[in-house]
Amino acid sequence: MLEISEIFNAAAVLKGVARKTDIIPAPKLRPGTEIFLKAENLQLTGSFKLRGAYYKISQLTDEEKAKGVIACSAGNHAQGVALGATHNGIKALICLPAGAPISKVEATRGYGAEVCLVPGVYDDAYARAMELQKEHGYCFVHPFDDPKVIAGQGTIGLEILEQMPDVEAVIVPIGGGGLISGVAFAIKTLRPDIKVYGVQSSGAPSMAASLKEGKLCHLNDVSTIADGIAVKEPGINTFDMCNKYVDEVVTVTDDEIAAAILALIEQQKIIAEGAGAVAVAAAMFGKLPIDGKKTVCLVSGGNIDVNTLNRVITRGLSKSGRNYTFIIDLPDKPGQLSGVCNVVGEHGGNIMAVTHERINSSSAINGCTIRLELETRDKAHIDTIRKALSEAGYKVIN
Amino acid sequence: MLEISEIFNAAAVLKGVARKTDIIPAPKLRPGTEIFLKAENLQLTGSFKLRGAYYKISQLTDEEKAKGVIACSAGNHAQGVALGATHNGIKALICLPAGAPISKVEATRGYGAEVCLVPGVYDDAYARAMELQKEHGYCFVHPFDDPKVIAGQGTIGLEILEQMPDVEAVIVPIGGGGLISGVAFAIKTLRPDIKVYGVQSSGAPSMAASLKEGKLCHLNDVSTIADGIAVKEPGINTFDMCNKYVDEVVTVTDDEIAAAILALIEQQKIIAEGAGAVAVAAAMFGKLPIDGKKTVCLVSGGNIDVNTLNRVITRGLSKSGRNYTFIIDLPDKPGQLSGVCNVVGEHGGNIMAVTHERINSSSAINGCTIRLELETRDKAHIDTIRKALSEAGYKVIN
Repeated sequence: MLEISEIFNAAAVLKGVARKTDIIPAPKLRPGTEIFLKAENLQLTGSFKLRGAYYKISQLTDEEKAKGVIACSAGNHAQGVALGATHNGIKALICLPAGAPISKVEATRGYGAEVCLVPGVYDDAYARAMELQKEHGYCFVHPFDDPKVIAGQGTIGLEILEQMPDVEAVIVPIGGGGLISGVAFAIKTLRPDIKVYGVQSSGAPSMAASLKEGKLCHLNDVSTIADGIAVKEPGINTFDMCNKYVDEVVTVTDDEIAAAILALIEQQKIIAEGAGAVAVAAAMFGKLPIDGKKTVCLVSGGNIDVNTLNRVITRGLSKSGRNYTFIIDLPDKPGQLSGVCNVVGEHGGNIMAVTHERINSSSAINGCTIRLELETRDKAHIDTIRKALSEAGYKVIN
Repeated sequence: MLEISEIFNAAAVLKGVARKTDIIPAPKLRPGTEIFLKAENLQLTGSFKLRGAYYKISQLTDEEKAKGVIACSAGNHAQGVALGATHNGIKALICLPAGAPISKVEATRGYGAEVCLVPGVYDDAYARAMELQKEHGYCFVHPFDDPKVIAGQGTIGLEILEQMPDVEAVIVPIGGGGLISGVAFAIKTLRPDIKVYGVQSSGAPSMAASLKEGKLCHLNDVSTIADGIAVKEPGINTFDMCNKYVDEVVTVTDDEIAAAILALIEQQKIIAEGAGAVAVAAAMFGKLPIDGKKTVCLVSGGNIDVNTLNRVITRGLSKSGRNYTFIIDLPDKPGQLSGVCNVVGEHGGNIMAVTHERINSSSAINGCTIRLELETRDKAHIDTIRKALSEAGYKVIN
């Protein structure tokens, strides 16, 4: 059983190692509600995972430390364990699936761990880690279902209470449940009046399903842009703690997560990964009874692949009318394209790309189709350009 | 003449209004040098401008306050003045050029200012602001060349000294020079041992040129992605203060600024606008003698248009080999495209877009050209795919 004294102990151990991350006001995320962000994406390694991993490693016996630690992760946990081990001066071996993004592999190596790339998927890497652990006697650092790891993550709860004593609700992402177990345990033990809510992706709702069923549920398929919380089954300890200490668990869709990532960029100037943005998504889209309440959303990490980020931004821009692709049928004679471009330019559209297709089954035999990708200001701006093109005699088919 | 007591006064006035923004370690930006970021992009309104504008407005007489304030800006200053006036309970009118991005107009209105959209460019909006000021007796809030505004920005210098007393060098962006004048004055008055460096964009080097010439220089054309510091002429006061208190001023290119923005996203999980990233760019690209020194880079703001951000990311991804567009000549017969896609898929390339052109002067008369936009891991990965395509008999022309 975890005791509150252990979380205070973890806080003392983590002092000078983990950053006490800032709490940042987010006045526009949900008008009428005072939202604040606990910015663990600005933690060293780009996520909260350092806290649990470091504390776990610091509590090993000298004998265990001498053997070193092993972990299996393609993400934030790998970097947390790597940096935690390096800080403690011990050896870390991290098993990753061979297809893991180069950037994550390099980051893990960069924090001083040895990396073992295992052909296959996560489960294969996990199996290999277990083999290696047995063979060499390494200590396995579980990503979430370990009381020491949970105690480390719980230090975030202590910080929130200290930084914002008048907080009324705290919203926390859930993957395996280690983060919320620590945070909820700390907060409910010290301040049972504060609500603690959990959020999962609707593509990986293992804890939500388990709490509903009253027993551990295993999902066969999980699919979400929030890869950091795409966990098929909660832990035994974390399930038990969520049952006891969490007021409600809700889910958000990938579109809602993407909108939250974009809002955090535009309004707050910070980068969250998918898993890091689910608490904000739940607040933005009214999934929880927080209106009028002083609410802290935990932004758990910011390690998003930049290609993914680019796609999220592009999609968000489309959705808010800030880019648009016109498709226009034109008679195939000289001067048509420049005519279209003139109309677009006069109305302030900024052309990003043009595709001009002469052979196209949908256009007239003597015609052609052009695709114009534009940067636009908003949906009204798109309508203005569309109207101007129609009035100039062009046949806009999209 | 500005006195240090005025900066302490400004700090007292700004307490509870401006956030004391965090100082964040940035261990990977320049290996071998301890870089820290003073994150004024996480300031309310997304930039430091609130400080100077608020302090200036707070120091007006009751008579001046009753008349209200006016400013001219398409950017951060507009939002700073708007929020500063609203907090002080007085009226603000902001003149903006009519083509300003909708998002900036809306943000300015959102902070409670009245907005006057003036046809034309910045200079037209400025002329109109002057007219309105004379007509109605509003107080004009200069964006940089005002001792009160400079004192407000100088509070950042006090915070840096308090948050990191062992700092050895501070790097600050320069547009008109208000920010660096305040920061350098505060630091050099209290701690003359600390170096203060300034950075401009090479597309708008008005302060750098003026310091070199020993007199105010006016640039006719300025062009840079760092629009927040695209200033044609420094102020009289700020020129004088930079002359006295700044150790060195250097410039960075747009490509260096873009690389700094991308590095801040990937390594630090924060968004900087172009102007906000120049100090980091100067540190990253070795423009200043800071190696081995504990250095604070001031990240002055994060209000970057998301379309621009998207372009910066895309360009950065290309430069680092994380996307690539192959152009391949194919005989025009069935099965060719799927063959190419198979090769790409087998080697882990992720197809984002395909353009298939049958009519193309550069391809054989019975051939066609395809453009494949791929997400790739790095430059070596691109080479691997290129080699595989060639070995499979495809003619890769780019």
